[in-house]
Amino acid sequence: MNQPARNYHMELETFRRHGHAAVDWVVDYLKNVEQYPVLSRVKPGGIRAQLPEHPPQQGESFERMLADVQNIILPGITHWQSPNFFAFFPGNSSPPAILGEIISAGLGVQGMLWATSPACTELETHVLDWLVEMLGLPERFSSKSRGGGVIQHSASDATLCALLAARERCTKGESNHKGGNGRLVAYASAHAHSSLEKDCRIAGIGSDNLRLIAVDENFAMRPAALEAQIEKDLAAGLTPFFVMACVGTTSSLALDPVRAVADVCRKHGLWLHVDAAMAGTAGLCPEFRFIHDGVEDADSYVFNPHKWMFTNFDCTAFFVADRQALIGTLSILPEYLRNQASEAGAVIDYRDWHVPLGRRFRALKLWFVIRHYGVEGLQFHIREHVRLAQAFKQWVRESRQFELVVDCPLNLICFRHRDGDAATERVHKAVNESGAMYLTHTKLNDRYTLRMNIGQTRTEERHVQMAWERLSEAAK
Amino acid sequence: MNQPARNYHMELETFRRHGHAAVDWVVDYLKNVEQYPVLSRVKPGGIRAQLPEHPPQQGESFERMLADVQNIILPGITHWQSPNFFAFFPGNSSPPAILGEIISAGLGVQGMLWATSPACTELETHVLDWLVEMLGLPERFSSKSRGGGVIQHSASDATLCALLAARERCTKGESNHKGGNGRLVAYASAHAHSSLEKDCRIAGIGSDNLRLIAVDENFAMRPAALEAQIEKDLAAGLTPFFVMACVGTTSSLALDPVRAVADVCRKHGLWLHVDAAMAGTAGLCPEFRFIHDGVEDADSYVFNPHKWMFTNFDCTAFFVADRQALIGTLSILPEYLRNQASEAGAVIDYRDWHVPLGRRFRALKLWFVIRHYGVEGLQFHIREHVRLAQAFKQWVRESRQFELVVDCPLNLICFRHRDGDAATERVHKAVNESGAMYLTHTKLNDRYTLRMNIGQTRTEERHVQMAWERLSEAAK
Repeated sequence: MNQPARNYHMELETFRRHGHAAVDWVVDYLKNVEQYPVLSRVKPGGIRAQLPEHPPQQGESFERMLADVQNIILPGITHWQSPNFFAFFPGNSSPPAILGEIISAGLGVQGMLWATSPACTELETHVLDWLVEMLGLPERFSSKSRGGGVIQHSASDATLCALLAARERCTKGESNHKGGNGRLVAYASAHAHSSLEKDCRIAGIGSDNLRLIAVDENFAMRPAALEAQIEKDLAAGLTPFFVMACVGTTSSLALDPVRAVADVCRKHGLWLHVDAAMAGTAGLCPEFRFIHDGVEDADSYVFNPHKWMFTNFDCTAFFVADRQALIGTLSILPEYLRNQASEAGAVIDYRDWHVPLGRRFRALKLWFVIRHYGVEGLQFHIREHVRLAQAFKQWVRESRQFELVVDCPLNLICFRHRDGDAATERVHKAVNESGAMYLTHTKLNDRYTLRMNIGQTRTEERHVQMAWERLSEAAK
Repeated sequence: MNQPARNYHMELETFRRHGHAAVDWVVDYLKNVEQYPVLSRVKPGGIRAQLPEHPPQQGESFERMLADVQNIILPGITHWQSPNFFAFFPGNSSPPAILGEIISAGLGVQGMLWATSPACTELETHVLDWLVEMLGLPERFSSKSRGGGVIQHSASDATLCALLAARERCTKGESNHKGGNGRLVAYASAHAHSSLEKDCRIAGIGSDNLRLIAVDENFAMRPAALEAQIEKDLAAGLTPFFVMACVGTTSSLALDPVRAVADVCRKHGLWLHVDAAMAGTAGLCPEFRFIHDGVEDADSYVFNPHKWMFTNFDCTAFFVADRQALIGTLSILPEYLRNQASEAGAVIDYRDWHVPLGRRFRALKLWFVIRHYGVEGLQFHIREHVRLAQAFKQWVRESRQFELVVDCPLNLICFRHRDGDAATERVHKAVNESGAMYLTHTKLNDRYTLRMNIGQTRTEERHVQMAWERLSEAAK
């Protein structure tokens, strides 16, 4: 054989130089992010029109790529890292999380089995045990019990796994072999996230078998209505098996009464999954742990450090009280994955805890975030966001133009124009188009409602004040 | 309100300094990676034992974290980026991909809807169209047709989506509403990846309804056996709906005869999904495109740039010929996700193309990889890997100790000791424990078989030669 004359890899010293330039670009971006219109102003097709139709035959320089990021990509970005981003949910990054992503990308490991990088698995288990302690979650979600935590891609994926584990337990594994029977019934509040319906479709439960339970005046699930529906389904010969309680609904951050829901679940032997996707992070502060009242009876729990906890996407923390139910559906062991450590049963193989086989080293960034901020720093910022949201709520209450739709104790304020939907929509359009801020809407009691979600990493008092001024100005 | 006295964020200039240090750490890691034992030598629990039991109350310095990465984490790493990694599949990273990850982490956008960062969606569509051209895939997988491509988390996730789209088409959407009926039947070769069985469980098809079809002497699916099984199932009143053909099985890189399988699918109206997870990348080179013969009749196709194409995990490229079938199951539109661009129908909302709602900007790294290497550079390295694997195959053929198990035209060579399984296992254990290289095994015809998978970014001739010498030495 003859050694080839050359290769096309980037020399490592060249990579060092470009790596520094990429970091510098990110630092500059974060310094300037407040100046950009939050919601991108490009028109459909506007980005593609600037890209070459065909892939390059010869390689190009990184300088050209970085220039294209600046000139072509940046105008097509909606700035989730802007302190004036109040839309959907905070999709936070932070410097320590980005540092974790850099190291993780450099190591480039697959943590599918313990053996394929023991540190990837053990750091993950360890940091998720830390989260149990940090959020005051029940010990049954810790790896020291029969349960444990795992990092998943998204809350949609985690809730799918909760459904599968519940299905496994209810049918004693039969559904894995025989497929769906169209008779398992799942329950959640009418305000639960749409991903649950999607997950019911995916898992072969069927969306007709998802019961959306009536809510009270605060948009929280009515446990009596839940129980009545379960009894009705039982009477019809169906098999209730799964309830999802929301600790913070998407529309209005309504808090389902987890304890009362748990009582119903226990009575009827149903799996209780708790979706605390954004709001769970508030559990870092003891004064907000009332949101988790009753969680000690849940079978599974999910929240997203990649939302309000300064950790880059993807980083969903999913906990189960009984890992066997989860693994029962998701573990299949072909010969090419067999290895000594797994056979001995002494280790966790996270590939059995979710849908994908491959998995990158996501625990690093979470470890860095917790270590950089410390519990104290995380608490400080969560408290600060809640303080700002509560101030905003008070401004709405005192306003002659706006009215509060629901009284949220955390960081999502739902409000609307007193003059009705058309006025609210007009205000919404005006502030988003101004570029100075971005917020999204929902419908509550069939009324167009604005959602002011305060939780972006760099949002400070001045941003919330300015947002209020813009909203008030637009409402005139 | 009073402005708080301080915050806990990392100052951006401090972040710049640490970012450079993180890049330097990665550069040094990649310079030294060849020196480390490829397979980590830590014992179960060895990493956790070095970590503090409780999370830190106060923040810590990045210097300490980086020192812990070096001292605690690194010994627990199995080095997927070592040029002596020949195990499982190549899980490649490369400098341009890491640069893409840095920029993506800095931007921290969610591309769930077009509007939430138009550039994230449009660059993805564009680069996936490039891949169609680069691999010589049929035009029906391009966004200019009724189909298109999307980046998914893993091939397991993508194949799950293919199953769902097939289920949607076969039941005209009924399975979404009613749940599984236990009568849909899926087919794949007995050597298909275990993720398909997992996906059948997840999707409520049931593993009893997955038929594993007999293979020929090269471990490729027998189309006649497939057709016979379909007819048997039809006669039994079941509903065949999905066939997966493997372009490169996990065990031995066997190539199912896609064209013949496609003929059977067309005749019976079944969805054909093609799993080319690793081997698809070979399609970059015209001389290897025979692997894709017949793919023009497939309904969906998946391959992983995050395996052999130098792009950091996660980056699975999934293509469908009819996007409506996919979206039919996965699209649910609640009020809080409504927006003008989506309502107008002028844009792609990728949240409807997979399970999760959230999605990070993964197209950037793929764009950077294609632009850095150019088509020419990618072809060069794929050809080089295949050349090295074919040389290795020849050494096995000429060996007195080893024998070739199957004749692979690409980059995975399956071989075993002539003295039987015990001897093969002994060699396997010896070379992995030496730390000098890492390869994994499978069983073929019930015999313990070593898999030498040559495709790591930095693997050169000298690494393959040294591996052969070690294997030969251990075999004595």
